[in-house]
Formats: sequence, structure tokens, C-alpha cells
Amino acid sequence: MFFKSDNSLGVPEVMFEAMKKANEGPVTAYGNDPWTDKITAMFCDLFEREVAVFMVTTGTAANALSLAALTPSWGAVLCHNESHIMVDECGATEFYSGGAKLMGVAGENGKLTPEAINQALYYSEPGNEHYVQPAALSLTQVSEAGTIYTLDEIGMLCDAARSRNFKTHMDGARFANAVSSLGCSAADMTWKAGIDVLSFGATKNGALAAEAVVLFDLELADELNYRRMRGGHLISKSRFPAAQLIAYLQDDLWLKNARHANEMSKCLADGLQNSSKLRHAFDVDANLQFVIMKNEVHEKLIAGGAQFYTWPGRGPQGKNAKQEDEIIARLVCGYSTTKEDVDAFIALVENVG
Amino acid sequence: MFFKSDNSLGVPEVMFEAMKKANEGPVTAYGNDPWTDKITAMFCDLFEREVAVFMVTTGTAANALSLAALTPSWGAVLCHNESHIMVDECGATEFYSGGAKLMGVAGENGKLTPEAINQALYYSEPGNEHYVQPAALSLTQVSEAGTIYTLDEIGMLCDAARSRNFKTHMDGARFANAVSSLGCSAADMTWKAGIDVLSFGATKNGALAAEAVVLFDLELADELNYRRMRGGHLISKSRFPAAQLIAYLQDDLWLKNARHANEMSKCLADGLQNSSKLRHAFDVDANLQFVIMKNEVHEKLIAGGAQFYTWPGRGPQGKNAKQEDEIIARLVCGYSTTKEDVDAFIALVENVG
Amino acid sequence: MFFKSDNSLGVPEVMFEAMKKANEGPVTAYGNDPWTDKITAMFCDLFEREVAVFMVTTGTAANALSLAALTPSWGAVLCHNESHIMVDECGATEFYSGGAKLMGVAGENGKLTPEAINQALYYSEPGNEHYVQPAALSLTQVSEAGTIYTLDEIGMLCDAARSRNFKTHMDGARFANAVSSLGCSAADMTWKAGIDVLSFGATKNGALAAEAVVLFDLELADELNYRRMRGGHLISKSRFPAAQLIAYLQDDLWLKNARHANEMSKCLADGLQNSSKLRHAFDVDANLQFVIMKNEVHEKLIAGGAQFYTWPGRGPQGKNAKQEDEIIARLVCGYSTTKEDVDAFIALVENVG
Amino acid sequence: MFFKSDNSLGVPEVMFEAMKKANEGPVTAYGNDPWTDKITAMFCDLFEREVAVFMVTTGTAANALSLAALTPSWGAVLCHNESHIMVDECGATEFYSGGAKLMGVAGENGKLTPEAINQALYYSEPGNEHYVQPAALSLTQVSEAGTIYTLDEIGMLCDAARSRNFKTHMDGARFANAVSSLGCSAADMTWKAGIDVLSFGATKNGALAAEAVVLFDLELADELNYRRMRGGHLISKSRFPAAQLIAYLQDDLWLKNARHANEMSKCLADGLQNSSKLRHAFDVDANLQFVIMKNEVHEKLIAGGAQFYTWPGRGPQGKNAKQEDEIIARLVCGYSTTKEDVDAFIALVENVG
Repeated sequence: MFFKSDNSLGVPEVMFEAMKKANEGPVTAYGNDPWTDKITAMFCDLFEREVAVFMVTTGTAANALSLAALTPSWGAVLCHNESHIMVDECGATEFYSGGAKLMGVAGENGKLTPEAINQALYYSEPGNEHYVQPAALSLTQVSEAGTIYTLDEIGMLCDAARSRNFKTHMDGARFANAVSSLGCSAADMTWKAGIDVLSFGATKNGALAAEAVVLFDLELADELNYRRMRGGHLISKSRFPAAQLIAYLQDDLWLKNARHANEMSKCLADGLQNSSKLRHAFDVDANLQFVIMKNEVHEKLIAGGAQFYTWPGRGPQGKNAKQEDEIIARLVCGYSTTKEDVDAFIALVENVG
Repeated sequence: MFFKSDNSLGVPEVMFEAMKKANEGPVTAYGNDPWTDKITAMFCDLFEREVAVFMVTTGTAANALSLAALTPSWGAVLCHNESHIMVDECGATEFYSGGAKLMGVAGENGKLTPEAINQALYYSEPGNEHYVQPAALSLTQVSEAGTIYTLDEIGMLCDAARSRNFKTHMDGARFANAVSSLGCSAADMTWKAGIDVLSFGATKNGALAAEAVVLFDLELADELNYRRMRGGHLISKSRFPAAQLIAYLQDDLWLKNARHANEMSKCLADGLQNSSKLRHAFDVDANLQFVIMKNEVHEKLIAGGAQFYTWPGRGPQGKNAKQEDEIIARLVCGYSTTKEDVDAFIALVENVG
Repeated sequence: MFFKSDNSLGVPEVMFEAMKKANEGPVTAYGNDPWTDKITAMFCDLFEREVAVFMVTTGTAANALSLAALTPSWGAVLCHNESHIMVDECGATEFYSGGAKLMGVAGENGKLTPEAINQALYYSEPGNEHYVQPAALSLTQVSEAGTIYTLDEIGMLCDAARSRNFKTHMDGARFANAVSSLGCSAADMTWKAGIDVLSFGATKNGALAAEAVVLFDLELADELNYRRMRGGHLISKSRFPAAQLIAYLQDDLWLKNARHANEMSKCLADGLQNSSKLRHAFDVDANLQFVIMKNEVHEKLIAGGAQFYTWPGRGPQGKNAKQEDEIIARLVCGYSTTKEDVDAFIALVENVG
Repeated sequence: MFFKSDNSLGVPEVMFEAMKKANEGPVTAYGNDPWTDKITAMFCDLFEREVAVFMVTTGTAANALSLAALTPSWGAVLCHNESHIMVDECGATEFYSGGAKLMGVAGENGKLTPEAINQALYYSEPGNEHYVQPAALSLTQVSEAGTIYTLDEIGMLCDAARSRNFKTHMDGARFANAVSSLGCSAADMTWKAGIDVLSFGATKNGALAAEAVVLFDLELADELNYRRMRGGHLISKSRFPAAQLIAYLQDDLWLKNARHANEMSKCLADGLQNSSKLRHAFDVDANLQFVIMKNEVHEKLIAGGAQFYTWPGRGPQGKNAKQEDEIIARLVCGYSTTKEDVDAFIALVENVG
């Protein structure tokens, strides 16, 4: 009954096979190899247009490098106040951008709205040098709350951003889960909706350590190239992360893995829906879900062998707020989560005193 | 009827006299001159202990240099969410600290409370590398709302900070107004209450361009020395800012100026207190006050010759919130504000249609 | 016999008169005042074209802000390996630029040559992300060695820079001395010769603390505006540095002061030229000169009441190198240096044992 | 005949086996897993003392994170003027340190000497805020020239550093090759000789992407932890780089690989030693060597199927300098270089025109 994190799972065997296949003969280092060329071409296919691709090994690197290219050091990035870049990356975006500000915006269900952005911008004044200048909007899809923006919602947020000349970034650490859940194309969910730069995540969904900054705004490519090198994120034996991503995209492995994780999460949500022991904090749109329970229920679940993290912070904003004697738990399903584990957890909840 | 800003006023003649007196013969540059020595000694007297003094020419420089020395780049500074360092300095603290985070904390009446700080720290976890590490607390005295922390309040906030190993900073852009209002000593309001570093402001209260970082934690002196130079804030002809500060402290000019400004502000507040045309947003403790009025009243006051700024943002948090058809105005009195202007403004408000 | 530094001297009385005149009535702060408008117009006149002007209070700030706008953080600035930005500013340019590299280039007589620049660029490769990307050239006029680039030399260096798409910066801490020495116009020595950004110094030549970044490339104005604020270099009572610069430019005070300093320096050089006790290290083109002497001569001069600094480092490159038992002394004349002092120093040298 | 780079080679099969073995069951992410614990223990064994280990995926990250912890932003790092951190990392150390300066020091044979360091420090003055403050010394072992410092040389350099309170760093991108060549222990070559922090490289010698910062100064561990996270270098599925390093250290694979590479390099050097077509630029101590040849020889070798890089820059300092019509070639042998290739290259050189 392991629901701690999708980062905690291993990888499918095919990852090793793919890397072995790339392990032939000497090739030029630092990304000038056939595997890197191939993955770039595959990304162009996936997104149905020319894109520039910068592989890195962590999502934090992808986010921070992306946002550093989208905002000057005196700029600001609008993001949800519980987003990963705001809360969980030890200030990586501030570091890479030379001290830009993240402006955290509240939003129910883990999601931003154009109205909330308007409100957050109340203080800022374009052209007034006393204020940092908002320059980019960052959305997280799947959000930190496990919810998903619809294509319309993304479009409206991007419109709101563009009307103010902000650039737009999507933190797609769980990109596959979102695409799978929406049943749309990768293009639909990104540049067609107005996204300029994407952090494309693969690690949480089956790669060892492979993420990519995908640029739809090709003019940023030059800058990304230097920023990645300077950040120490240019892998010399680039064929190995490339091989992982090739295997990930080939035969739709990325979607299969994500679909499985989402289905397991759905099963779990359905099984818990009517429980009197806990209630959901947010909508369950993808492979992670948050449930609120009494401390004593929490203790019994742990004692019963369930593994998951409790969540810091205030929990859901608006409705459904956590009470004093309660905790919020995050339950994450991944590509290798089993139906047995899901059923066992549901049964355990039912049987908790 | 000029109430725009204390920065908009000139300086007392004595400032020029003092600088002229310092204009004799060659002296060693960059702070190794008798005037700089003298002002350091005067600050030690003022604070009744040894302090290290670093003159700079702007309050933003004083704040950013101070806070950069108090927090690592992966750290965070807790401050009021409408404080000058948070809102009005174009990210100077983020820049000087190498990308540390300012954690804005809400608080009524422009003031922080130990409870609000506790709440803000909910997310952070000492020693967990995924989170920025709060390292300093910054108080603004006089606050941006024109209110003043009592000595007890400062003491309690500093205790809360120290119990978590945070360093403490006071943004004293209007230090004199606060000391004058509280009737306490400079020592009482700073290190005796637990403050480690002070941004001592003089410019708003009668200097041309003279502020000082005052260190009560002398171990930071070495670092400040390099940071000031590297920021381009070491004045070569240091005798001139020194002369300003000498004149400022001598014969209690600083307190006289502040007392006058506070008194004018009190007269203004008293005269407006029962007006039906506007209401105060916050307590009036020092030389600035905020009043809420209908848009049409605002327009008439401007048309009548009053000069003041409206204030962006949500205005007062909690009680007394601004309505849709209202604005918040900031009225600032300074060392040279006249009773005539105050009376004229009160009369103008009374006579507004 | 004071020849330590032009920073050590005071200021002409007219500076105080000018500031007093600006000390009337309230004006909008932070540069939106008539005096700031006036000095901007005066700079446009001086340079015979539209320029953008950003006043600051130190030369280090002017240099670092300028260069930060000319190079990305992964860029490099070419400069003389003994230039002020390289050696004497505690890494201010590295700080303001977010970690760009200064590439120090050797050059005789304190001056860069196109050839030396070519050689320094041997390692760099445009577009190769493994190398920092040279982006700007910075010249110091008057150079740190007291020498002056001819207009042709500036033109050739700027051509060499522009052919590689580098921007060009002039550190004009002693701008007046150079213009006076060359007998050219301010325009000739800057944008007409290919300079994009100038650090215009006044402090060393008679102001209290007033320098200006002068942009000939107006597209940089927006960026400078934020960078200056963020660096804490926007003076609230901007009328006072403006008043200094107005007085400085009015009635050619800047040229008069510089001419005097240069003349005194010339007298000094002439008087020392045939001395057997010391020899000049570099050409004497302006108001500072370097002489090499035996340690024992140095001691006797100090004992005789002369005040000057010895110079660290290897001293002159190429010809004329310092020997083991010798020191290099820097002798600086300023706007208030007297003929009496110059003569006294020459006599002292003659009479040294 | 591939001699381009050790980064261009693949990895031994055992790497994949090791990672597969680590691919079992869910484990806590971000380094809190048994494989990360094991590799830390193995490093303690290897270095015969307690060390703190921070795995990263590139040598640039290891170097920049290390040096950022050893120098304040106003500090300087002394290093060879052709070292990787100086020339090839796009300013990563400047970036991570917040703008510290790298002071490049010349040295024959790619190596620093205490004398050269003394000379480089001529300009700096401890405690004088006008100068950046040298704070660390970084050695590269194997050097960029392919030479190796003896234990005595390392000891003397570390002594020189420590006598000035500098911290010491070793860039050990080719650590194994150096240890193998010297026949000493890992401890001998590092902390026993005075090194505080080591960048331990494995990628060039057989790992996919696995390097480690090894701290002998344990007080830096806290800082490294935050800096690594903030730089985006904390791998979530940490077990996989750990598995690589476990396989690398187990059964002395690291030494076997390095010994082979060194031997191939020795064969190559011996075979070329008496050639009239080229001459060595530096001593050949490990797995890379530099040869100087006429342009026409270069062209013929390439035409004959040899693959190697020419080297930018001036080439060897002092003796043996490159002539106008010559190039410098770098020939690198790796863990999988074959005797056949070496012999073929030697024969090709012999048979060239």
C-alpha cells in the first residue's frame, strides 16, 4: 500500500533496454549525438510543430531554467501560492533568475483564475521602477492539488497573461497524466492554448531522470542553451537521457503509464468516496488525490501498513478546510501501482475502528 | 497643501552649513576621515553601546544590504505583506541576497504579530532542503500604514524570531518619528528589544541623502563592508554624508524634526476625525496617515489644490476595508509641513460638496 | 603636498550654492523634479543629441549598472587587466550582472589595443555554450595609468568591438580630464567614436557625490531604470545630485576644474622629468602620474611631508618595469591642487639625499 | 581511431546491471534510500574517514556547487588560467557563487605553483573592501594539460592556501586516472594532502552521469544540501546514480578502467615520442595528451580517419609553444579504447606524407 510519491517508484525494464541500445560506439558528447537528434525530432512530432528541446535531469531544473528565460531579474512570475516552484524547490527560480519574485496567487482546487491574477496584479504598475514587473505566468498541469485545468481554462489564463505581455510557462511534471485525463493532444494542451514554454516531465511517470524544457517560443533557444550549461545541467553522455525519453514516447509508453496511474487513482477515489473516515479535499482529476481525516484515523492507517505523506500547510482553500484534529494526506498512484494495493487500502480504511 | 511624501521636502539650512564645515582640506577618501569617525562615535552614544555604522545614500540600499547579511541565498525574510521591502523596492533584497525569498505576512494596522508569523511558517521545515529556510524577521517602524509597534510588541516579535534562530532587522526609514512618538530611547526601540540590525533613516526627516546600516550584531561588520562596496554604496567623499548625519543628531535635530512632523500629523488627524467625507484606515501614530474617501471627494480635493498620493492595493486588511467607489489616500507630514497647510486641508475637506 | 587622490579633495563653494537654490518648496521625489529634468537637458546639449541619463552617487555604481545592461549573465566584459572595474570595485560588475566574467586584457601604458583584444578572444567561440560569451568592451578614459586614448584609438577599439557585436562602455571617472586633455568635444570622445554607454564622473573633479550613466543606446533606458532602483541607487531627493551636476556643467566648471588639474599634473611631470631620483612609469596625459623610485627615496619623501599612495601590482607592463627595491607611486592632482604644492614636491625630490 | 573525449564513450554493461538491481520496489525519493546510504558508506571507506557525499550528474555542477560553498560572493577562487572552471563551464562558478571572481593563474605544464599563486595575490589585500577577497584554491587533478600533481606538490599548494586561510578544492573529473597514475590512495591525494572538498568524477571513466561532491570539511554539508536542491541537482530517483557509483567503486572498477585508459595513453605517447610529425606539448601523466603538429599533418590525419579535437588557446605556456602554421591536438584514451586503435593511430602518423 505505497502511495507516497510517483518519484519513489522504479522504472519499466524497457528503459534499461533503450539505454543499452544507445550504448554503442563513441559519439560526440554534450548533445551532439544521434539519440539527442532523434528525441528532438520526436518532440516536434509530438507537438505537431517545430520546438526546441533542452533535456535536463530534474523538474526543478526544467522549471527554473524556463522561468529564468521568461523574466528579467527585476521581474515577477505569477503562480499558485501552493505551486511546486513557490513552495518545494528551495527558491530555484529565484536563484536562476537572479532574484526575480514569485508572486503567489491563491486559488481554489489548486488552480489559478484570471480573476485571481487580476487581483494579484493590483499592486504592480507597468513601467514604474519601484515595483517588480510581472513578466510571466506559470501554470502547473496536473496541479499540486491533483486537479487539471481544462483547455478552456488554460486558454483563458494564457489570454489574460498575453494581454499584459506576460510569457506563459507550464510546469508539466505530470504532463502525461494531464494529457491522458483530458484526452487531448500534447499540442492542444500547450502552444495551441497559448503556452510559450513547457517543463515536460518524464521521471515521475517511468524515466530514471529525464525531463525536458520544450520551447514553443524558439527565440529563447539561444538563452536556454547558455543557461543550461551554466547551471551544470548539460549532460555529457546525452544519449542516455535521450534514450530514456525515446523509450518514453515510443509506442505511447508515456500515455499507457499515465493512463494506468490515473485509473488506479480513480479506483481509489471511487472506493473512498463514501467513506465516513475521510473526505476528499479537491477534485480527483489525475493520479494524485488529497484526503482529510482525523489524526486517529491517520495513525491507524499507518499502523495498518499504508504508506503516504501528510501535507503541510492550510490545505484546501475555501470549502472543505481541515479542522484542528485532522490531517491532510496525499495519495499518489504511479505507473506500477497495483489494483491489489488500491483495494487493500480501501479495505483498510473501511476497517479502521 | 502638500502631503505627498516626506521625500519631497527639502532640507534644513543647517545641513548645508554642516557640509561646508566638512569641506576643508584634503582627507583620506572612502570613509577614513574624521567626520566618519565622529558620526560613528555619535551613533555609539545614541545607542548607548558599541555599534558598527555603514552609511549609504538610500533606504533601499540600507535595507537590502542589511537583509543580505542576515539571510543565506536559500533563506527567507519574514515581513509584512505591504512592507516597503516587499512592495516598493523593485526586489532589491532579492537582488542583494542572491535570490532569497521575502515571505509576506498579513497583519492588521500594518503590523505583524507573533501569531501571524507562526502561521506563515506552517509550510517551512527547518533542515528540509526542499524549502527555503526562513532566516530573518524584518519589522518596519514606523510601519507602512503609519502605525507604530510598542516596545512590548517589538520585544515579543524579536523573541518569536530568536526562538527560531532568526535574525532581526528594523526598517527605520522613519526611525525618528517612531522614537519621538514612543518617547523612548533609540536603544530601547532596537537592541534592547532584540533588534540585530537597523536601517537608520535620515533622508525623510531632513537629510539630503543619508541613511545608515547600524549593526548591533558586530560580527556582521566584515560582511557589510564588502557588500556595501560591491553594491557601489561606499561614498568616496564620505565626509559629506557624515556631516549630514552629524548635523542630524546634533542638538537633537532629528527628534525636533520628527516631533514637528508627528504633531502636524496629529493636528491633521484630529481635524479630520469627525469628518463625514472620509474615515481613517489605520491608527495615526506618527507622521503619515491613510484616509478612505469616495472617488468624487478625492477629485474635489485635488481640484481644490491638495497634493497627496492615492494608495494602491487592497488597503486596510480586516475592518474598514475600502469600497468599490472609494480610494485610499496617504497624507504625509514632514519636518517643514506648516500648520497653515494642515488647517487649509481640513477646511477644504469640510467644504467639499 | 597632497597627491593622494582626487577623491580626497573637497568641493568648490558653488556646489553648496547650487544645492541651496534647489532647496525650495516640495517637489515630486525620485527624479520627477525640475532639476533632474534640467540636468537631462543639459546632458543632451553637452552630447549634441538625445541621451538618457541616470544619476547615481558612485562611479562603481555607474560602471556596474552600465555593464550589467550590456552583458547577459553568461557574458563577458573585456577590459584592461588593471582597470578599476577589474581590480578596485570588489567585483561590483560581477554582482550586478549576475556573475558575468571580466576578461582582463594586458596592455602597455594602461591601454587596450585591437590586437590584444583579438588575442584575448582566442579561447572564446561565439555560440558555443561551453564558453562565456564576450558581449561588451569597457575602456577607461583617463586610463588607470593616467594615459589617454586618442579619438582614433577609441574609434578603432569600438570598431573592433562592433565587428563582433559587442557593446561598448567608457568608464569616464575622469571624463573631464580626458576631454580637456584631448581638446575635443564630449560627443567626439563618446558616441561619435562608437561608445554606447558612458559612466560620467563628476565626484573626482568637484562634485560631492554625483555621477551619471549616460546612454547613447536609448533602448537600454528601460532596463537601467529598474536596475538602478533595484540596486538602491535611485536617490529620493534627486534634486540635490541634479543640482551638483548642473553647477558642474554650467559655465564649463567641469572643464575649468579639469584643465587646472591637468596643468598642475603637467607642471609636476615637467619638474620631475629630469630627476635622477625617480622616473615615470607611463606617459603623463592627464591629472595622474606614476613614478618609480627606490624604497629609500620613498621613505624620505614621506618623511618630508609628501602624501601619496604607492601602487600595488606589477606596475608598468613591458618597458620600464619596477625593480625589487623600488616602489611605484601614484601622484594625483585635482581641481584645488596648488602650484605651491607642486613646486614644493619637486623641490623635495631634488633635495632628497 | 577515436580520441575525442572520454565523455564520448559509452559505459560498461555492469552499469546497467547495477541499476536494474536497484530497480526494486518503491523507496523514499530524493536520496533517502538504501542505495544512497550505501554509496555514502563506500565513500567513507574509500577515503578512510567520515565524509559527506552529494551526488550530482555533471562535473560542472560538482565544481560550481563546491566552490560556491567555499567562497563568499565577494571572494575569489584561484585556479589555473586554462582550467575547466575558468574556461569551459560557461561561468558556472560565477553563477553559483553569486558573482565571485575566478583568478586565473598561469603555470607551465597545466599546473599551479606556490610561486605563481604568490604573484597572483600581489594585488589583493586581505580586509580591504575595494578588492575581492581570495578565499579558495582549486586544483585540477588530472590537470587540463593531462599532467598530474605529485602528492608533495598538492601538499605544498594546500599549505600555501591554508597559510592564507583559503579553502581548497580539487576538480577530480579524472580522479581515478590520477590515483591510478600516482599509485597512491584516494585519501593520500585529497584530505591527507590538505584538500577540503573534492569533485569526484565517474562519468568520464565509465558511469552514465554520476559525479559527487565529497566534503572533508563536514561543516559545509548543510550548505551543500540547500545549494544542490536550489540548483536543481537533487535527483529524485537517487538510487540510480547511487547504483552507478556503487558499481563504479565495487571490485575496483574505477581503478581498472582508469588503469586501462592510462596504459593506452602511455602506449600512444611512447609510439609517438620519436615521430618527426608531431611533438608533445606537455608531460603525459595520465589518459590525455597534447601534441603539436603542422596544419597539413592535421589534415592528413583527419583524412586518414583519426578523430580528435584541436585545442583553442595559446597552447603550452613557456617552452614548446605552438607556431603559426601548427595546431595543438588533444588525444584522449578511455576505459574502452583499444590497443588496435592506438597502434593504428601511431601507424597513421608514421605514414603521413
